[in-house]
Amino acid sequence: MLDAGRVAHVGFEAGGVPYVVPLAYGRDADRVLVHGSTGSRAFRRLADGAPACLTVTLLDGLVLARSAFETSMRYRSAMVLGTFAPITDPAAKEAALACISEHSAPGRWADVRPPSSKELAATAVLTLPLDEWSVKISDSWPEDEPGDLGRPVWAGVVGFSTRVDPPQPAPDLRPGHEPPDYLSTLPAPGTCP
Amino acid sequence: MLDAGRVAHVGFEAGGVPYVVPLAYGRDADRVLVHGSTGSRAFRRLADGAPACLTVTLLDGLVLARSAFETSMRYRSAMVLGTFAPITDPAAKEAALACISEHSAPGRWADVRPPSSKELAATAVLTLPLDEWSVKISDSWPEDEPGDLGRPVWAGVVGFSTRVDPPQPAPDLRPGHEPPDYLSTLPAPGTCP
Repeated sequence: MLDAGRVAHVGFEAGGVPYVVPLAYGRDADRVLVHGSTGSRAFRRLADGAPACLTVTLLDGLVLARSAFETSMRYRSAMVLGTFAPITDPAAKEAALACISEHSAPGRWADVRPPSSKELAATAVLTLPLDEWSVKISDSWPEDEPGDLGRPVWAGVVGFSTRVDPPQPAPDLRPGHEPPDYLSTLPAPGTCP
Repeated sequence: MLDAGRVAHVGFEAGGVPYVVPLAYGRDADRVLVHGSTGSRAFRRLADGAPACLTVTLLDGLVLARSAFETSMRYRSAMVLGTFAPITDPAAKEAALACISEHSAPGRWADVRPPSSKELAATAVLTLPLDEWSVKISDSWPEDEPGDLGRPVWAGVVGFSTRVDPPQPAPDLRPGHEPPDYLSTLPAPGTCP
């Protein structure tokens, strides 16, 4: 699920208020990596060791039962609890950024200009161990009560699938650059690279 | 954004630990409605007035810049802070459940068997006012530094779009029921009904 998702929702508390922020992420073996601005309040709080919860949810479809009560969704969700730790070593930081980039756009890292030392210093990179986690999967069909099966209504599942649209060149792209091959096989959100 | 999303991530604290749970929801004027099991710890805690944060994020695409630092995502995100309150009046509860159902599957509510009083009693319905909220929209093109514009690499945006797959009948669907017309216009996640 972590490999299939593209955005994690990370929860933490600050000043007695819970916050849930969407973050890009990557997975490296048994840890999840996130990055953001060193100026971000969320990243400062997480880097300070605030207890955190990282949840990734993939919505796969609707389960249309014959009763309101049994109507539900097909989804996959992973929840990781723990404490983030900052990665400060520049080489380790750059490797973590490469992991996050390759998670969403495999092949892209080799093409981009790597972060300068100034850019690296402005980027917070945090790691969360996959120690305490749980997953939920709902992939069922409608589970109506026997008494509802005769109702004159269609029942079943409507799935959702996410596609990758054709690449759109940047307005300032100079002539002579075609979309790279790896974009033609870019994994859609909800699928693994 | 709330109308376009289908799953909200709701954060709250319980026993010193932050939790982020994915929930279906609906919007009724200036409030957000969620439902769940009265036996769920999350719903008991939220119904007790725990401070909460509800975040809905729509991932629209990847922004592929020429530098790692400027690479980002196109997304829309709404964050609502506040405290949920339970809806206990049965008629108001059923109306709220209809709102949540119609949010994901417009037209469906008229077809399903409404909740029995027993089912209604087992369902927690909570409302969160749209009083304190913020939104973030990232819909930009790559914003590379002038010095990077000459790099020999394609730059631009790759969008994502979610589609509704053809309806799949339940294994126990009795003969003679065709998918209803409203499924042919079911709004895909990320789009408004």
